[in-house]
Amino acid sequence: MPDKEVKIVEAVPNFSEGRDISKIEKIIDSIKNIEGVKILDLNVDPQHNRSVITFTCGIERIIEAGLSMIKTAASLIDMEKHSGLHPRFGATDVFPIIPITASMDDCIIASRNLGRLVGSELNIPVYMYSESAMVPERRNLENIRNKNVQYEELKELIKTDKYRPDFGPDRLGSAGAVIIGARPALIAYNIYISTDDIKIGRRIASALRGRDGGLNTLKTLAFYIEARKMVQISMNITDYKKTSIYKIFELLSIECRRYNVYPVESELIGLMPMDALIDVFNYYMKSNITRDKILEYKIFT
Amino acid sequence: MPDKEVKIVEAVPNFSEGRDISKIEKIIDSIKNIEGVKILDLNVDPQHNRSVITFTCGIERIIEAGLSMIKTAASLIDMEKHSGLHPRFGATDVFPIIPITASMDDCIIASRNLGRLVGSELNIPVYMYSESAMVPERRNLENIRNKNVQYEELKELIKTDKYRPDFGPDRLGSAGAVIIGARPALIAYNIYISTDDIKIGRRIASALRGRDGGLNTLKTLAFYIEARKMVQISMNITDYKKTSIYKIFELLSIECRRYNVYPVESELIGLMPMDALIDVFNYYMKSNITRDKILEYKIFT
Repeated sequence: MPDKEVKIVEAVPNFSEGRDISKIEKIIDSIKNIEGVKILDLNVDPQHNRSVITFTCGIERIIEAGLSMIKTAASLIDMEKHSGLHPRFGATDVFPIIPITASMDDCIIASRNLGRLVGSELNIPVYMYSESAMVPERRNLENIRNKNVQYEELKELIKTDKYRPDFGPDRLGSAGAVIIGARPALIAYNIYISTDDIKIGRRIASALRGRDGGLNTLKTLAFYIEARKMVQISMNITDYKKTSIYKIFELLSIECRRYNVYPVESELIGLMPMDALIDVFNYYMKSNITRDKILEYKIFT
Repeated sequence: MPDKEVKIVEAVPNFSEGRDISKIEKIIDSIKNIEGVKILDLNVDPQHNRSVITFTCGIERIIEAGLSMIKTAASLIDMEKHSGLHPRFGATDVFPIIPITASMDDCIIASRNLGRLVGSELNIPVYMYSESAMVPERRNLENIRNKNVQYEELKELIKTDKYRPDFGPDRLGSAGAVIIGARPALIAYNIYISTDDIKIGRRIASALRGRDGGLNTLKTLAFYIEARKMVQISMNITDYKKTSIYKIFELLSIECRRYNVYPVESELIGLMPMDALIDVFNYYMKSNITRDKILEYKIFT
């Protein structure tokens, strides 16, 4: 076990390749032999032509790991040939670093040092976002990269003040640009509702969405999922310590009643911190337990 | 971290001393230097004059640890001088061994080998119970040791067929007898209800109790807790995989309504396996997650 002294970070880099597995394997191979690196999860999405690799390591290794992955991705992925639904800037599109036993400040420092080296050694433009943003407007990822500003548009925009990179050259090669930053753990959580009417889904998504006056730190979208013939409310909880999952589920249930529909099933995409699980238990059981009451946590940490 | 190959067991031995901490410390010291031993929890109860030590180790060390603790307890605790509310047989009263990454069969074999050595090397009578019972009637602890059959009564009873020990001599020294066995993890869980009427508490406890037609694998008792001026429903879940905590809480809530009372707060005594937490989450969130979705579990195991 990584003993308690070790400062562990989690990284969930997104790469603009979701169809050619062999390229993703090469990117993973590029960090396999770095001491302490542990691959936790891999999500390959052909529809979005995008892959997400989840791994952990000691903070002293994250810069080495990041440089190695970003360099490998740049050599394998040509943005001139890339297409997919999801907005994207570059071969390595986003590189989030999340504190586990390390502090957020540790992660901010490490992410900026990684950004500096990606710019100087790999000659790739870098935008720092979230907690690591060096320009206030860049704290929110959607303000940097969105449906209307992607790799193609950035070629010109990068020469403007608004889009001057935080590190690296102000021109775009075939590897595009990388968005790097430290951020809190994020929970990706979906709830299917008993309707195929996307309009109902959009209204419920809006009722829950922080931006529209719903739960703060909650981002929502509604999709019609052909395979299930059902509407899915797709959510990102950007601060699970403030917005507990039970609040989301109960509020969604209440909104469903307006339309005589109900939540059918919920699913977690990727991993969830144990505290988010404990919050739900404590609410429904009227208890007040902590991680120290969980057998496996006591045994393995 | 104990790597996945290591077969880990948990032990929660109960000792008949809850007032003189120094004796409990000596018992803990007797296993401190055994490789892989990790003390997880200590509960010292002066009212019952009884202590519970929770620890884990590799299964290859549990016999050494058990012998060392039982020998130390026998040298420090004189049952002739012991009194307390809780039924008890000996200095080391019960020695349960619980599978963590080891199998139940592994634990049954280890517990019987421990029992044999306690009998032959320490010359203390041993009764095997639960999964390790060598006589069917001894599977249930209450059939061996109860309010009416304790250390004092056992002095005579031990000479009868019914109470012939599974290992060791059929006479009782000042260390009494030890009850040893492998059993599944048990959850000790209490719910406080909004009344000071113990009669209501007893009725609710009975409605939930497996033996009285309630939830199978659930043992319940009602106590009036002076410090809280409230009734506490005290429960042991002997098989949490069959009897989930949400079922207990919801059924208790329904029974409370008969008397216009409600559950005020619930508390966990000792530790709980992560799967019991996940069961509750999955029920209320209509999800189907497993331990592999929990970040800390993936990182530390």
